[in-house]
Amino acid sequence: MCWPYDTVLTVAFEVFRLLFLTLDSCHGIDMLNDAPTSGRIRSVQTPVIPFVQDLVTANPGTIPLGQGVVHFPPPTEAIQQLREFGGDPDHHLYGPLEGIEPLQVAIRQKLQRENALDLDDSAIVVTAGSNMAFLQALLTVADPGDEIILFLPYYFNQEMAIRMVNCVPVFVPTDAQHQPDVGALERAITPRTRVVVTVSPNNPTGAVYPETTLRQINRLCALRGIYHFSDEAYEYFTYADVFHFSPGSIHGAYRHTISFFSLSKSFGFAGWRVGYVVLPEHLLLSMRKVQDTNLICAAMPSQYAAIGALRAGYAYTAKWMPDLRRVRDTVLMRLAELGSRVSVVETSGAFYAFARINDTQMSDLELVRWLIETHQVAVVPGSAFGCDEGCWLRISYGALRPESVIAGIGRLTKGLQAIPA
Amino acid sequence: MCWPYDTVLTVAFEVFRLLFLTLDSCHGIDMLNDAPTSGRIRSVQTPVIPFVQDLVTANPGTIPLGQGVVHFPPPTEAIQQLREFGGDPDHHLYGPLEGIEPLQVAIRQKLQRENALDLDDSAIVVTAGSNMAFLQALLTVADPGDEIILFLPYYFNQEMAIRMVNCVPVFVPTDAQHQPDVGALERAITPRTRVVVTVSPNNPTGAVYPETTLRQINRLCALRGIYHFSDEAYEYFTYADVFHFSPGSIHGAYRHTISFFSLSKSFGFAGWRVGYVVLPEHLLLSMRKVQDTNLICAAMPSQYAAIGALRAGYAYTAKWMPDLRRVRDTVLMRLAELGSRVSVVETSGAFYAFARINDTQMSDLELVRWLIETHQVAVVPGSAFGCDEGCWLRISYGALRPESVIAGIGRLTKGLQAIPA
Repeated sequence: MCWPYDTVLTVAFEVFRLLFLTLDSCHGIDMLNDAPTSGRIRSVQTPVIPFVQDLVTANPGTIPLGQGVVHFPPPTEAIQQLREFGGDPDHHLYGPLEGIEPLQVAIRQKLQRENALDLDDSAIVVTAGSNMAFLQALLTVADPGDEIILFLPYYFNQEMAIRMVNCVPVFVPTDAQHQPDVGALERAITPRTRVVVTVSPNNPTGAVYPETTLRQINRLCALRGIYHFSDEAYEYFTYADVFHFSPGSIHGAYRHTISFFSLSKSFGFAGWRVGYVVLPEHLLLSMRKVQDTNLICAAMPSQYAAIGALRAGYAYTAKWMPDLRRVRDTVLMRLAELGSRVSVVETSGAFYAFARINDTQMSDLELVRWLIETHQVAVVPGSAFGCDEGCWLRISYGALRPESVIAGIGRLTKGLQAIPA
Repeated sequence: MCWPYDTVLTVAFEVFRLLFLTLDSCHGIDMLNDAPTSGRIRSVQTPVIPFVQDLVTANPGTIPLGQGVVHFPPPTEAIQQLREFGGDPDHHLYGPLEGIEPLQVAIRQKLQRENALDLDDSAIVVTAGSNMAFLQALLTVADPGDEIILFLPYYFNQEMAIRMVNCVPVFVPTDAQHQPDVGALERAITPRTRVVVTVSPNNPTGAVYPETTLRQINRLCALRGIYHFSDEAYEYFTYADVFHFSPGSIHGAYRHTISFFSLSKSFGFAGWRVGYVVLPEHLLLSMRKVQDTNLICAAMPSQYAAIGALRAGYAYTAKWMPDLRRVRDTVLMRLAELGSRVSVVETSGAFYAFARINDTQMSDLELVRWLIETHQVAVVPGSAFGCDEGCWLRISYGALRPESVIAGIGRLTKGLQAIPA
């Protein structure tokens, strides 16, 4: 048999071409494999809660004092809204970017009544949780290279959001009571500072910032032409006659204050994803651009449920507070019994104790792993909150009930007493 | 009465100090007012759908051919899931970042069965819609300055997402049939190119890209070490024996292909916000960082509803397709009757007709406003999709039923015939 010359040539050429393409393709994929992710995402810390959660799953029976959740269920009014949801064809379509009208009305009333916010020139945007509102607000007002000031320890998702959008987190220390150092804040401000963030009641320390401090910070922001981001996710969780104050209620502050609220903790439905942000009216168009590109609207079933929750209102959360107070007292008492091994400041809000573990050579990550594996109790390492010096742990007691607190905190204190030298 | 000298001095000093602070505070706020938003957000176009929606609201009785929604309700299985939701305490807590396990399983089965995706080394992340998945994927793989290639006309929210995260959109033309020009794509690639985006079936043209074209594009991406983002939100909506092809099903393509899916259109619950993204396993940790910071998890009620929807599956959507085909035929026929006034390419997917209006001096925005105000019919201006030359309109017919199509398209054609010269 004899093949024509041009056929042989064509076949040979095709073979070489395919070989070349395959090699070249490998080269292309190799390029991708060398840097598969963005630089910005590499600069962001690994989510800590799922890290702890994975350890919990691998160690069945572990009592979780990690995630920031409450033990109580959503109010009946919220569940009822879900039962009735779906009858109207509009329930299935996209809703308005800012949230459905009756939810807007309910939120507006709540903010006026409880937070004394002046909403005449402000807008409200409902998001799928307050984390999202924070990220979207950053995109709305801050450019790459802009500096965003966080107090130490910070709430990890805020630091992550800042890095993710190529802004620069600037850390300002708090005092021994976890209260902001306003002098240090003032010194940290530069021409690139765009936002100062406060979280009160605080995650992870539980510190409630006094009205005077929040006024000082808010005023400093006004003087310097900086936004004040006020995270108020834990507004309902205060103890010992300490009250929550909303900086957005300061006269004229609406112009530079962006306030973040969440229904996740107050109404026991963290997984339903409803939060909202209050911002000056002149930022609304810009925030709408982000909302349209990211979420479009919060999930309609959850928005209707939120109306039910707001109808139940603070009275619902308040019903569970005596329980939470007892849990908190037990937690603080048992930690105090550990003496010099553990330093904890008694703060007045949220449902966290932020504890420094003294006299240990273990890193916080090692300690968290060790506590889960040997004592079946999970907490969150302090490095996630920016506390790299010393070994810090965040203990979340919101999910404990008076009847389960002894077991949970008992395991923790036993573990902390038994830390290997 | 006589005041001590030092009291007078103190009071005077205090008055001046307060005056100074007030002026200074005004100065700070003025600084903010000069540039209240970020530069990146100023570079993003105003959301077009709410713009059209506002005109519709101002003109009651307008038939909306604007928003990309379908007329059919969610499947009973999805509603039923909502009815049963809330019994388990876990329903209220945060779910896993990637979505709840039974939904992951249902999606995995769907993708293997219908899209022939090889998922061995891929991960699935459930988001609150496919827009969000796109934005999160950009943050995961692209840095500021990276070039992202979109075919013209583009889907507006993708162009908005690209600018919002400081990447650079690069536009590549399509041919007269709205099909990608692969040669032009190849020429548009530079060392900064990070992603090529395809949307098939296409929004806004309805073009379905043939398997050969998608293979060429996917291979080109592999050769050059570029990600291929494949938006498949309209996968169920094809006509005339044209079939949808998933580039992620190409052998080995999983390494550089990120595929986006949505339940909004297929199951008639756009407002419930469920979509998902398939990405190479080695990107999962990075995508988890974004998910944790933005959404944490898709709303739990919606996730359970999605399980019900996937149980109903494609068979549910298919049931409505004969209706949609009849609507489409009528729309195309009536537009053809307009002769040279309107140029429309008959494409094979989605539920959009992208029409060029000839011989008019009106801009697309003026025409959209005029059609709503004088003929009570709403469409979307082509400039939102990057078509600035000539006057283009996107006509969405997904929300029409066979019995309402005559009225809707009748108003539009009557309006287009009556355009003032």
